Amino acid sequence: MNYHKIFADICSEIHQKEDKGVVASYIPELKKVDKDKFGVYMSMINGEHSAYGDWEEKFSIQSISKVLTLVLAYKSEGEKLWKRVGVEPPGTPFNSLVLLEHENGIPRNPLINAGALVICDILLDTCSNPKEEFLDFVRELAGNDSLEYNQAVAESEKATSFRNAAAANLIKSFGNLKNKVDDVLDLYAYTCSIDMTCADLAHSFQFLATDGYDKKSKKQIISVSRSKRLNALMQLCGFYDQAGEFSVKIGLPGKSGVGGGIVAVLPDHYAIAVWSPGLNEKGNSYLGMEFLELFTTKTEYSIF
Amino acid sequence: MNYHKIFADICSEIHQKEDKGVVASYIPELKKVDKDKFGVYMSMINGEHSAYGDWEEKFSIQSISKVLTLVLAYKSEGEKLWKRVGVEPPGTPFNSLVLLEHENGIPRNPLINAGALVICDILLDTCSNPKEEFLDFVRELAGNDSLEYNQAVAESEKATSFRNAAAANLIKSFGNLKNKVDDVLDLYAYTCSIDMTCADLAHSFQFLATDGYDKKSKKQIISVSRSKRLNALMQLCGFYDQAGEFSVKIGLPGKSGVGGGIVAVLPDHYAIAVWSPGLNEKGNSYLGMEFLELFTTKTEYSIF
Amino acid sequence: MNYHKIFADICSEIHQKEDKGVVASYIPELKKVDKDKFGVYMSMINGEHSAYGDWEEKFSIQSISKVLTLVLAYKSEGEKLWKRVGVEPPGTPFNSLVLLEHENGIPRNPLINAGALVICDILLDTCSNPKEEFLDFVRELAGNDSLEYNQAVAESEKATSFRNAAAANLIKSFGNLKNKVDDVLDLYAYTCSIDMTCADLAHSFQFLATDGYDKKSKKQIISVSRSKRLNALMQLCGFYDQAGEFSVKIGLPGKSGVGGGIVAVLPDHYAIAVWSPGLNEKGNSYLGMEFLELFTTKTEYSIF
Amino acid sequence: MNYHKIFADICSEIHQKEDKGVVASYIPELKKVDKDKFGVYMSMINGEHSAYGDWEEKFSIQSISKVLTLVLAYKSEGEKLWKRVGVEPPGTPFNSLVLLEHENGIPRNPLINAGALVICDILLDTCSNPKEEFLDFVRELAGNDSLEYNQAVAESEKATSFRNAAAANLIKSFGNLKNKVDDVLDLYAYTCSIDMTCADLAHSFQFLATDGYDKKSKKQIISVSRSKRLNALMQLCGFYDQAGEFSVKIGLPGKSGVGGGIVAVLPDHYAIAVWSPGLNEKGNSYLGMEFLELFTTKTEYSIF
Repeated sequence: MNYHKIFADICSEIHQKEDKGVVASYIPELKKVDKDKFGVYMSMINGEHSAYGDWEEKFSIQSISKVLTLVLAYKSEGEKLWKRVGVEPPGTPFNSLVLLEHENGIPRNPLINAGALVICDILLDTCSNPKEEFLDFVRELAGNDSLEYNQAVAESEKATSFRNAAAANLIKSFGNLKNKVDDVLDLYAYTCSIDMTCADLAHSFQFLATDGYDKKSKKQIISVSRSKRLNALMQLCGFYDQAGEFSVKIGLPGKSGVGGGIVAVLPDHYAIAVWSPGLNEKGNSYLGMEFLELFTTKTEYSIF
Repeated sequence: MNYHKIFADICSEIHQKEDKGVVASYIPELKKVDKDKFGVYMSMINGEHSAYGDWEEKFSIQSISKVLTLVLAYKSEGEKLWKRVGVEPPGTPFNSLVLLEHENGIPRNPLINAGALVICDILLDTCSNPKEEFLDFVRELAGNDSLEYNQAVAESEKATSFRNAAAANLIKSFGNLKNKVDDVLDLYAYTCSIDMTCADLAHSFQFLATDGYDKKSKKQIISVSRSKRLNALMQLCGFYDQAGEFSVKIGLPGKSGVGGGIVAVLPDHYAIAVWSPGLNEKGNSYLGMEFLELFTTKTEYSIF
Repeated sequence: MNYHKIFADICSEIHQKEDKGVVASYIPELKKVDKDKFGVYMSMINGEHSAYGDWEEKFSIQSISKVLTLVLAYKSEGEKLWKRVGVEPPGTPFNSLVLLEHENGIPRNPLINAGALVICDILLDTCSNPKEEFLDFVRELAGNDSLEYNQAVAESEKATSFRNAAAANLIKSFGNLKNKVDDVLDLYAYTCSIDMTCADLAHSFQFLATDGYDKKSKKQIISVSRSKRLNALMQLCGFYDQAGEFSVKIGLPGKSGVGGGIVAVLPDHYAIAVWSPGLNEKGNSYLGMEFLELFTTKTEYSIF
Repeated sequence: MNYHKIFADICSEIHQKEDKGVVASYIPELKKVDKDKFGVYMSMINGEHSAYGDWEEKFSIQSISKVLTLVLAYKSEGEKLWKRVGVEPPGTPFNSLVLLEHENGIPRNPLINAGALVICDILLDTCSNPKEEFLDFVRELAGNDSLEYNQAVAESEKATSFRNAAAANLIKSFGNLKNKVDDVLDLYAYTCSIDMTCADLAHSFQFLATDGYDKKSKKQIISVSRSKRLNALMQLCGFYDQAGEFSVKIGLPGKSGVGGGIVAVLPDHYAIAVWSPGLNEKGNSYLGMEFLELFTTKTEYSIF
């Protein structure tokens, strides 16, 4: 099978599909993005890659950052991290605060907003300069020193994300945040605001396709076993309440963001990142999902 | 790597672990089982197998049957089946009726009780003699014509499962059951009551390790794509509200039953069934989970 | 103040109001009722009364029966009844099964369906012939020996009320029903099916305006203190999730039914029953609510 | 009947009852209160009064303030206030945030925390100097110019009430707060912090026993109809999730606070305030409830 041929074929077809997605509007800064952008980059573990469209253009990674903050916290905290955040799928969207209340302030998993807030709280304790250390970590994973926080996006989110503030205060009321609510919300907003290209994202996640080992830096970022656990978590929790549909139709561990990015991994084969700003009603990139479904269907290869 | 060696090593160690599980008591017939039973059977796609302990003893498959009824219904209904049942993880246990009410009688997935009731309702419409056809189907998959319903277990469940009756009536109130509630509950209780050995179960699920093709009968039970979808569903929904923990620790698609059985699949490698009647607080076999965690950890091989 | 004059004035105006209500359709038999029916009857404790329109015509009392079954069970069980059913308002409509599940099968109060099912379960234990004893009790309260169950309505409800069957099975699963689910549902359907006129209802509830004493039969139906408790329960729980609005706008203890009847009581003054089959979106008679709001506003007299 | 005699009799007995209550600890400042304090003051509409114990000692009125902020907002907003807050009982305690989320940021009623936050938001818009105007209003109702905010209590609450901050942010996320979250929380904390005596409270609420007319100031504080509506709201929503039990056992409109105060009204007869800092598990004064239950039982007079 030729991955690159299939990749190219789908790229040539994808524009015939109607983009039924809608650009995210809840963070004012994100509204400004051009809906017609489309980029995709596949990085194979053998060093080959395929790229198409706007793959060199930066966009806001948003929730995709939740995997990266988790990795950094997991490295220092280890398994005791799971005392403060669960590993179960979130159930339905409206449940975020509902389940948080029922389950005494322990978020269901680290890839939903509530869970990522707890992870940021951990980073505030374990890093001497959390924003700097996190940015350095992401730059190293991406192999790209030019990556930066997008301050306009971060401040825009901080000014408007009352629901995150509600979640953070509720978690705090249960004693599961150690730091000040405002400090947690600040770090959270900044980690979400990093701008990256499809290539950056595929490079950053490739260590999860190679059992935690990063070929670029020749470092074991995280152990084999933890690398598998991170993939399992992405599989179950990476797509809001569309995790099931993503698993059934696409069958890869991955994570989406409301900036329109999706990154996914086929262990032992490749990492892939796709970007199309129009979101479906679940908050996942509409054409991004279409592309990945075609790709795993035509390659006839997924984790299942 | 030698799967058989690792298998044997773990078998020789497993009895040193304390069995913290408790035998299911909510169905009176199931209480009678000897908690000390332990069996396991691995069937590799190359035809080899390993077996240990009480692998030839029959036990009640209970919820494991939900995968098998789903396969039979999926074969005849195809993708339109997903109009009546979802593909998302269940959220928390108490949610069963809660979410059913919120989501207008569409169960979250076919591997929870509510979803399996809808599947049984479909079988009542698509089969001329549902009990007979389902038993024939399971016998064929297992390659064992001696399999039978356990009438005592089925009747015991029917007499005591008021919560299933509640779910069925609630689904009916939303119009998502076509047949009589009692008929649906009857078929459901019988499909759960089949007695099988670890070997039977591993053989029955092996087609899901080989993209839907059953080597014994030389039949394509279900298409490649649907076989992958079934594995994805088991991954996300096969272990009640412990799906995340099972994925993170074990990393295989599978399904458990309150009879103490667990069956799991590593696509392109093996199907494995383990039986130990003591259940953890989530309703999954305590030692069965322990065995499988050791197995995928030591083989260093899972879907992730 | 002249109650009768105000009563007459409102009756002469009420037809100018548009009836925005809709006749209940979920029980097929109830759909047949003529929406234009309107009747009202006020029975004062001094023996006077006012009547208007279709006050002599029988209609299905439906949930109004919940107060009457409660009185009969309260007489024999006394305060230990509150171990099996609460006294708190129901919250929201969709909560019926939700809260039942959260609160371990103890219905929130005896005037919602779930609670009335528990009351019927009690009557099955405390009465030697529950249907006969209940009918005798209602006939005595109404002073009308011609009252009868409407078998067509009862059987229509039994055949279609899957949600009640769901609630009954859920309560049974928690051990809070002693009798068979079908027997409880049968008694429940029959008690709801009695046909009564506005005059019958006003007479039946008048003892709650006179501290539990029934002037007609010269019997203390229930003690002073329990009579007050029953009024308090009606105040908080008598109008589904519109209890607050009814209290704020009308300010009388009362109970409605989906047959379009509402009965209400001003202690030390009167009992009043109004009937208009069109229901508002909360299931309470649209014009019935309008009439009572005008009546307590113009008389400037309520319990508050 | 002699109210004063019954009042005195109960006062002489009340200390024989074990105080099973516990002093509120969630606001650090409140923990300092002496649990043995007990005071009660009844102000009859004919000008007579009875007093006992620590009726002249000030305590923190806490949630009792919710009625007073509501009255002030109701005076200026009128019925359009009900577009932003409901009139239905809250359901269960854990529902506060749950129902807020389900019901799109419209709190169920103005006497729960979420609802009082919306009322404070209204006061921030309608008053030029909300804190000063509210304090003036309470001083006038109480006929006591010495009343003050307790700054230590207010600041203690602001520093620790993360759950209120969660609710305020959630309401803001639905657009039902116009002002800054911190400003709303600040006003809320101050209004709760006023210290008053039993006599102050009974005087302040007496206008609700006289159809909105305040005899002291000879002013109609609010219209007859709105006065009745306020009583109805207290009846249904004044005691957290113990509203039903309070109605059934005591049968008076009223409001409690976690400072241990309860104020209640029998329209056309009296206003009564009782204070005992030990709270039952629902957050209502344990001995305060006992006193009021004895009082309405022995006087045989309630609204029902």
